Amino acid sequence: MTGPYILQPDPSDPALSTEVPGIDQTGAPVMTKVVTEKPLTLYLNSQEVVTMMTIGDHPDLLAVGYLKNQNMLSDTDVITGIDYDDDLEVVVVRTEQETNFEDKMKKKVRTSGCAQGTVFGDVMEGFDRIDLPANAKIKTSWLYHLAKTINMTPSLYLEAGAIHGCVLCQEDKPLVYMEDVGRHNAVDKIAGWMMLNKIPAGDKIFYTTGRLTSEMVIKTVMMGIPVLVSRSGFTAWGVELAQKAGLTLIGRARGKRFVALAGNERIEFDMNPDLAGDEPENARRKGSMAAE
Amino acid sequence: MTGPYILQPDPSDPALSTEVPGIDQTGAPVMTKVVTEKPLTLYLNSQEVVTMMTIGDHPDLLAVGYLKNQNMLSDTDVITGIDYDDDLEVVVVRTEQETNFEDKMKKKVRTSGCAQGTVFGDVMEGFDRIDLPANAKIKTSWLYHLAKTINMTPSLYLEAGAIHGCVLCQEDKPLVYMEDVGRHNAVDKIAGWMMLNKIPAGDKIFYTTGRLTSEMVIKTVMMGIPVLVSRSGFTAWGVELAQKAGLTLIGRARGKRFVALAGNERIEFDMNPDLAGDEPENARRKGSMAAE
Repeated sequence: MTGPYILQPDPSDPALSTEVPGIDQTGAPVMTKVVTEKPLTLYLNSQEVVTMMTIGDHPDLLAVGYLKNQNMLSDTDVITGIDYDDDLEVVVVRTEQETNFEDKMKKKVRTSGCAQGTVFGDVMEGFDRIDLPANAKIKTSWLYHLAKTINMTPSLYLEAGAIHGCVLCQEDKPLVYMEDVGRHNAVDKIAGWMMLNKIPAGDKIFYTTGRLTSEMVIKTVMMGIPVLVSRSGFTAWGVELAQKAGLTLIGRARGKRFVALAGNERIEFDMNPDLAGDEPENARRKGSMAAE
Repeated sequence: MTGPYILQPDPSDPALSTEVPGIDQTGAPVMTKVVTEKPLTLYLNSQEVVTMMTIGDHPDLLAVGYLKNQNMLSDTDVITGIDYDDDLEVVVVRTEQETNFEDKMKKKVRTSGCAQGTVFGDVMEGFDRIDLPANAKIKTSWLYHLAKTINMTPSLYLEAGAIHGCVLCQEDKPLVYMEDVGRHNAVDKIAGWMMLNKIPAGDKIFYTTGRLTSEMVIKTVMMGIPVLVSRSGFTAWGVELAQKAGLTLIGRARGKRFVALAGNERIEFDMNPDLAGDEPENARRKGSMAAE
């Protein structure tokens, strides 16, 4: 039961992890699987934008999603090509017209050191204009089924830990499951996939293993997705922004338990939590809870 | 037994968390404690540097530590003042001479979108020059005692989850325990404390709840600390950099278990792991494992 995924992790891909020799608490030699982390430099046309630390899969989706979530690409921009050079660790997104890049960069610098790394001034403009569909809903039966399915999906997280995961879902079906050493990268890859495939967002549910911070909420709202779910906890500003945007914010979703702090009216309690059971054993990931 | 801390979290500080009304999986109303997350804009003299998302405690330490870890401040720079304005959410660090800021900013843009948000080109120059003391050591008895003490220390993590923690330690004693919504902020606050108090680094141990990524390794090495320990997992580049710098890198440290992937020669196995026992109950944090 790994779900009807359109895209899901491939933990067997040798490019995404390495076996490293080490020692354990007794001094005995052990081989430890660790996830890949390498730089990827993104260009928008001739302009260098940023260098990201990424696990390296789906550079095209990451590039487009990053530009989209940073408001450097709009749905009206026509992408004429995405070139990726593995050796140079460079990805170039080409558009029909040049974009007003310099303005964006000025704003970017303002928050570049922020732990969340979002182009804030810029993103917030868009944020206030977004209307999330009021009629969208999330049934608790979907929630429980999604959590179980996602937790049992083979992933680098289960194999090596120390990686974040995000899943785009519809009703009780996970559609696209992305992982990355950078939490934003996992989100951006999904945003890139949605943009390139013109996927409607209003009927989707966004599941993340990461915390429900302001940036996570902003990105979900910017993507037009009305429901955000996490195994993990909340920050105060994340909650405040979710309430402002009318985003349904569900956190601490583990086994039968969860807490909703915004957009509660979309939740349909159609299942007895006791039937959801507790956290499946292998939801406790190997080595690291980093992605939760 | 909360350890002989010089500085430690104050989960009772009302400024650092808020109670938010929500509903649980049964639809019943619940009050949930969530951590504060607010912007802090940092100036170096007259120049705006960055806006960080932070929990908001110790803005002076965060400011100095950020500039230090970004190589914008060196030990030769004389800090003449640190002004913090709570209402404006601004902190200004003043130095005797102006620093060569523009160069730094150019480099900064290059990696501003990186999940880790480090000024890479710049930091790496310093990285290669650092010599970590070979004679420093870490006894497994210290390791087990530190983990227990830190796990039982009252913290926002235990109270509200969704926050990262870092602890500067010496032998089996935790000295300074910082938490923040941004993992880098927690590290930077400790770096700021060390710089302002001229604390030697060669005999210290750095404990983090976060993952052992390239940036975590780089920051620890730049701070001159020879041993980095985490409950969490590794990335491949983090391991590679630790090996290159001769940093002792210990991860997945939970209960009696741990794995070392670099600098193993500093580890002294002076305690039977079975006596270390398993993870203390309250090491399993409330709501979120986000900081691990």
